[in-house]
Amino acid sequence: MLVHLHDGDVAAGVARKLAEAAAHYQTPADSALIQSARLAVLDTVGCMIAGASDEATVGVAALTHAGGGKCTVFGQEWLRSAPDAALINGTAAHALDFDDACTTALGHTSAVLVPALIAVAEAEDLSGAALVDAFIVGVEVQDRLGRLFNPEHYAAGWHSTSTLCAIGAAAGCAHLLGLGADGILAAISNCFSMAGGSKKQIGSEMKPIHAGLAARAGVEAALLARAGISGDEEPLAGDWGMLRQFNANPDAKRVAQVMVDLRMGNALREGVLQMKRFPCCAATHKSLDGVMELLGDQGVDPASVALIETWVPADLAANLRYHHPKNIIEARFSMAYCATRILDTGGLKLSDFTAPALAQFATPENLSKVKMYGLENGDDPMGVPVRTRMTLTSGALIETTVVHTRGSTERPLTSDEVFEKFVDCCVHAGCDAKVAALWGDLLNSLPHATKTQEVMAGLRSA
Amino acid sequence: MLVHLHDGDVAAGVARKLAEAAAHYQTPADSALIQSARLAVLDTVGCMIAGASDEATVGVAALTHAGGGKCTVFGQEWLRSAPDAALINGTAAHALDFDDACTTALGHTSAVLVPALIAVAEAEDLSGAALVDAFIVGVEVQDRLGRLFNPEHYAAGWHSTSTLCAIGAAAGCAHLLGLGADGILAAISNCFSMAGGSKKQIGSEMKPIHAGLAARAGVEAALLARAGISGDEEPLAGDWGMLRQFNANPDAKRVAQVMVDLRMGNALREGVLQMKRFPCCAATHKSLDGVMELLGDQGVDPASVALIETWVPADLAANLRYHHPKNIIEARFSMAYCATRILDTGGLKLSDFTAPALAQFATPENLSKVKMYGLENGDDPMGVPVRTRMTLTSGALIETTVVHTRGSTERPLTSDEVFEKFVDCCVHAGCDAKVAALWGDLLNSLPHATKTQEVMAGLRSA
Repeated sequence: MLVHLHDGDVAAGVARKLAEAAAHYQTPADSALIQSARLAVLDTVGCMIAGASDEATVGVAALTHAGGGKCTVFGQEWLRSAPDAALINGTAAHALDFDDACTTALGHTSAVLVPALIAVAEAEDLSGAALVDAFIVGVEVQDRLGRLFNPEHYAAGWHSTSTLCAIGAAAGCAHLLGLGADGILAAISNCFSMAGGSKKQIGSEMKPIHAGLAARAGVEAALLARAGISGDEEPLAGDWGMLRQFNANPDAKRVAQVMVDLRMGNALREGVLQMKRFPCCAATHKSLDGVMELLGDQGVDPASVALIETWVPADLAANLRYHHPKNIIEARFSMAYCATRILDTGGLKLSDFTAPALAQFATPENLSKVKMYGLENGDDPMGVPVRTRMTLTSGALIETTVVHTRGSTERPLTSDEVFEKFVDCCVHAGCDAKVAALWGDLLNSLPHATKTQEVMAGLRSA
Repeated sequence: MLVHLHDGDVAAGVARKLAEAAAHYQTPADSALIQSARLAVLDTVGCMIAGASDEATVGVAALTHAGGGKCTVFGQEWLRSAPDAALINGTAAHALDFDDACTTALGHTSAVLVPALIAVAEAEDLSGAALVDAFIVGVEVQDRLGRLFNPEHYAAGWHSTSTLCAIGAAAGCAHLLGLGADGILAAISNCFSMAGGSKKQIGSEMKPIHAGLAARAGVEAALLARAGISGDEEPLAGDWGMLRQFNANPDAKRVAQVMVDLRMGNALREGVLQMKRFPCCAATHKSLDGVMELLGDQGVDPASVALIETWVPADLAANLRYHHPKNIIEARFSMAYCATRILDTGGLKLSDFTAPALAQFATPENLSKVKMYGLENGDDPMGVPVRTRMTLTSGALIETTVVHTRGSTERPLTSDEVFEKFVDCCVHAGCDAKVAALWGDLLNSLPHATKTQEVMAGLRSA
C-alpha cells in the first residue's frame, strides 16, 4: 500500500511551489486586477441570481439544512453554513451557462471560485480586499493546473470545472483563511479527495451541480486544512497522484514552462477569463457578434434583412442542433432562434429565453431567415474566425468576420456591459431594475469593503 | 461536446440492469441475510462510536451546521441533516480502520453504507426492514461493480471506498427511498459526479474522510434523484463513462459473468463482507489468529512462550514496518507489538492501543519475543496461508497454519464475538459496559423496528 514516487518525477514539488507562490500574495492597491476581479464577482452574482430558481439549484438547496449559518444564499431567506452556501450558489451560478470560463483550465472559473470565496469571507467576516487577493490566487492556480493537465485531461472526459477549478478554489479559500504555504498545500491535497465529475453529465442537471460541488469542495478542503487535516504532501505527482489519476502526464519541458514566473495575477492579467455576452451556447457567439455589428455599425434596418448566413466550424455547429427549438434549452442551442431574435429586439437577453418569447418568435418565417454552414475545424475550433453575411430585401449583400468574440481577452466586455448584464439577470429573477442597480453598486463596492458581511447584509435587505 | 457510445459497448445497459434488479427487492422474512445485515450494522456502529472523537471525525463535524436536522451523530448531542450525519458517521466508522470490507469491491462496505442508510432511514423514519433491504442492495451493487471494475480500478490507484462503495450506497439509499428503477439509475449516475479519491491519501487523515464523503455522496445522489434530478442515463459505459474514467475496461465475457443471476443478496450470501477481529492492520490477522489458537486450543501458558515466529507474504509484511512502535498508529502496524500484547492480555482490544498501554508493554524484552519473516507473495497475498510457531521455555515447538482469517467468509465471527467487539468499542469511547450492552440490544432490534427514529432516539437517551 506504500506509494513511492518515481525517481525524478517531473511534477514532484509542483504543488508545494504553487502553494508557496500563493502564500503571501497581496494585490497592489492600484492594480487593474482589482477591476477584473470586481467585474467577475458582479457577473457571477448576476448569474447566481438568475439561476437561483433553476431545478438544479432548488435540488441542491433541499440537501442543506436551513437552520442557521452566516452565509447568504441568493434567492433564499435563510442563511447557510459556508459549504452549503457554496454548493447552492455555485450551482445557481452555472445553471444558465451564462457564467465565465477559463481558457486554459477549460472550466467555469468564477462559478466555482466566487461562491466559495464569498461564503468563506462572509462566514469569517473578512475584507473585500482579501477576497480579491484570494480570487486572483484561485484563478492563477486554475490556470497553472490547466496548462499542466490540458489538453489531455479535458479530452479524456474530465469536467475541469469540478476537477481543476475545485482545486483552484481550495487554494483560493486557503489563502483567504490566511493559512500560509503548508495550509494551502494541504487544502490542495484535501480537495484532490473531493474532485471528480465527467463531461458525460453535460446536457443533464448534474452539469451545473458540478460547479456547486466544486465550490463546496474548495471551501471544505480549506476548512479541513485549517483544522490541521491534510492528505498526501505530493498530491500532483507520482503513481496515484492527480496528474495520472486525471489522465495527464506532462513532460519536464511542459512542467518547466508552466512553473516559470510563478507570480499570482499573471493569468488574470493575460486574460484567461472569458465572459459571456449572450445567454446561449458559446458556439453562437461570434455569429451573433457579427449580426450585432452589421445592425449597429452599418445602420441596417432589421426589417430589411431577408437572410442571415453564417459559417461556423463543424465541431461548434454540431452543438447547435435545433433549427426549430421546442423549448428554452433547445433555444439556447439554436443559431436560427438566437440570430433572428436579435433582429426583433436588437439584442439577446434572458427574457428572450422564456416560453412565451419562444412561442411568439420561433415562427417558421423567422427561423427561415437564418442559415448556418459547417466549416473545417482546424486544431482549435473556438479560434476560427466566423464570417456572417446578410442579404437585404434590396438584394444588397453585407458581411463581417469576427476573429475574437466579445467577452474574450482581446475584446473584453466593458464595465457598463457587465453591469447591464447583471441588471438583466436580476430582472429575469423578478427583481425591479432599480433594486438591481442598487445591488450592482453594492457589489461593486465589495473590493473596498472592510467587512464582507456588511455588503452581503445590504444585498439581502435592499 | 456530444457523447456517442461506441457501437456495441459491452457495458451498455449494465447500470440500468442493476437498477432494475434492485428496484423491487425485498428480503424474505426468514432469510439468513437479515442476520448478516444486523451484525454489519452493529459492528459498524461500534466502529463509529469508537471513532467519534478521532481528529478526522472532529474535522468533518466542524464543516456541518449543528442547527437541526433529524439524524443522530454518534458522540455528539446535536442532530444533523441526513447528508451531514452520513459525512460525520462515515468518517468515524473508518477512523480506526476497524470496520469491515468487501473482498470484491476492495473497499470499506459498511463504513459507507451503514451511516448513509441510517441517516436516510432516520430522516424519513423508515422501518428497519427497509433498511436491511437497502443494505443488501448496496452490498450487491458494490460487489457487482467491484467484479466489473477490479482488479484494474484498484490497481490504478482509485480508493474503491470512495468510488465503487459510494455508488453502491447511492443505489441503496435510492432503494430505501422507494425510488424504483429509474430513480435508482439516476442515483447511480448522480453519484458518478461525486465519486473520486485516490489511494495516495492512505496514511493521511483524508483516508477515513473518504468513507464519510462516500456516505454523504450516496445520500445526496439519492435525494437529488428523488427530486427529479438525474445525470446521463448510461453512466457506466461509453467514452466518458465511469468504467473508462476509472481505469476499467472489461471485455464482454467479464460483463456477462458479472451480470449473470442478478439477484440482490447473492454477494452477501456468498460472504463478500470481511469483518475485523482485531483493531490493527489486516496483514497481522492470520498470525494473531494463530497466536490465539495456540494459546487457547492447546492450553499453552502465555508465560511459557519464549519466541513467536510467523511467516507472512512479503507484500503484507511491508505494511508492518514498525518493530519498535513509537505511537498508536505505528502500533497498529507492528506485528511485534500486536503478537506480544496477546501474550499479556489473552486478546487484542482497542484499550491495547492507547499511549499508556504502549508505554507499558512495548518494551524491548516483550518485542524481542516476536520474529516475522517475509514469504513469496503469489498472485493473492491475502490468500496465502500463514504459519505461526511458538518456542516454549521448555524448548518445545508448537505451530499452526491459518488458511482463512477469522472474520472471513469461511470463518465468520460469531454473533457473540461481534457483540463483544461492539461493547469494546463503546467502552473505548468512555461508555459504561452495561450501557454499551443496552445499546447493542437496541441495535440488534433495528431489523424488526417499524420506526428507525425510535431505535435511534433510544440509543441517544440510553
